[in-house]
Amino acid sequence: MARYDIAIIGTGPAGLSAAITAKVRNKKVLLLGSKDLSTKMTKAHKIQNYLGLPEISGKDMAEAFKKHLDEMGIEIMEEKITAVYSMGEYFALQTGENEFLEAESLILATGVMQGKLYPGEEELLGRGVSYCATCDAALYRDKTAVIVGASPKEEAEADFLAEIASEVIYMPLYKDEVNCSDQVRVVREKPQEITEEEGMRVLKTDQNDYSVDGVFILRESVSPGQLVPGLEVKRNHVLVDRHMATNIPGCFACGDIVGQPYQYIKAAGEGNIAALSAVDYLAKRKREKEKAEREAAGK
Amino acid sequence: MARYDIAIIGTGPAGLSAAITAKVRNKKVLLLGSKDLSTKMTKAHKIQNYLGLPEISGKDMAEAFKKHLDEMGIEIMEEKITAVYSMGEYFALQTGENEFLEAESLILATGVMQGKLYPGEEELLGRGVSYCATCDAALYRDKTAVIVGASPKEEAEADFLAEIASEVIYMPLYKDEVNCSDQVRVVREKPQEITEEEGMRVLKTDQNDYSVDGVFILRESVSPGQLVPGLEVKRNHVLVDRHMATNIPGCFACGDIVGQPYQYIKAAGEGNIAALSAVDYLAKRKREKEKAEREAAGK
Repeated sequence: MARYDIAIIGTGPAGLSAAITAKVRNKKVLLLGSKDLSTKMTKAHKIQNYLGLPEISGKDMAEAFKKHLDEMGIEIMEEKITAVYSMGEYFALQTGENEFLEAESLILATGVMQGKLYPGEEELLGRGVSYCATCDAALYRDKTAVIVGASPKEEAEADFLAEIASEVIYMPLYKDEVNCSDQVRVVREKPQEITEEEGMRVLKTDQNDYSVDGVFILRESVSPGQLVPGLEVKRNHVLVDRHMATNIPGCFACGDIVGQPYQYIKAAGEGNIAALSAVDYLAKRKREKEKAEREAAGK
Repeated sequence: MARYDIAIIGTGPAGLSAAITAKVRNKKVLLLGSKDLSTKMTKAHKIQNYLGLPEISGKDMAEAFKKHLDEMGIEIMEEKITAVYSMGEYFALQTGENEFLEAESLILATGVMQGKLYPGEEELLGRGVSYCATCDAALYRDKTAVIVGASPKEEAEADFLAEIASEVIYMPLYKDEVNCSDQVRVVREKPQEITEEEGMRVLKTDQNDYSVDGVFILRESVSPGQLVPGLEVKRNHVLVDRHMATNIPGCFACGDIVGQPYQYIKAAGEGNIAALSAVDYLAKRKREKEKAEREAAGK
């Protein structure tokens, strides 16, 4: 498998801007995210302050951005990334199918996680609480699960899990009509807490307690500290310097994920900086490697 | 004279982005700079990585930006600002005609000064060395002066000075044809140093020494530390935090002036942040003022 120069996670303005600048700089770019771009963006009614695109709807802005990607020959890979590990020499990006993609540097542009973690969520993560139904489905054959879905696109995960599990409850966090298969039981309640009782996970809502084998929480984005172990985070925001560098060498972040203001043009500007910082990082590493090789050859 | 909420100096992407965001937030904005926008931008051949405006010429980008300003009813004032003083309660912006404009907060977006200061320039500033011919022309009646001009728009300053002074030498730093009046002597040499000898300023070039009463150096932008006394600067760049705040309360900076990368989308993103930081600053000041008034009334 070919190793990419720069992996970019997220297809909001920050990730897209990073991708086009990295491409202009001739880097091999892996752009990961939704081909429909950020839902937050496409649903925006009207954006007034993206300089150069006056009074534009989120939908039209997304079209303009897609056109830009197309003209530069940049493609989006819709792989869901569940975790990223820094291997020193490169980053290993774990996909929903438990495969690994590799890149020399990483740009996080996944947006800010909407809402807080539920009490108990973090403690039980990996022990009956999961962020990816597709990944862990095999563990739930003939078992029971609740899926909490933040957007309609999670309904497909519920359908998939229902083919394997004995019972799947789907709890939408949105108001749109739910179109799941008949195997899925849709429950409109408000999740409040996850506990563990007698070997089962208990999801407490505002109305009931659900005792199940697994609880899946499928949000627009996972918290960055969970996505990249070891990443320095403060209140849901990744800590970066003015070059958009995080505490992990070769890992940069941009857009809403690094903090307010949550604005499109700010995110795009930061994406540009992150990409150029990644380019600098790659160049520096190349020089170091060549120097080490020269020294080894000279011995 | 009405006091503005936010004065923005500079009409490159950073200043324009700041202006539209400030306007969206209902602030009274004073936007100062060239109506032709930044020369650096309009002369750019092709810009590939301004997300949403694929493969665009600097000229077309400037058109898109002007259209945005027009649609939002934002006007550019072409006043040249020679210095800005922080008065605590507000900023006083000194114009070329020695008048003062007032604003509660300030955003610097003047770009990065091209090239270095000439040896002797800083020491003799205000003592025969000046950055504004229009401002100081009256002092040069029947005297001699050299004008070093970084762009053709400075030719008008030479013409104006020639109406008053006894001799004006114009030294263009560019290659375009010079169209000055016959009173102006055009000399194509490379300035190297300014000294003071027997009460006269001596401009040394690569070919000659010119002994004159005054030396005018007209660059695209003056160094930020000279524009705003007391501003913390490091190697021509204004020091800012991630909110684009400088060391002077109420003074923000964005774009090339705060450092690399020198990129349009980065500048526009920072302009957005600077404007929102200025809005926050104004809101905080208002709350403090109201609190003080309540306390005074309660006594």
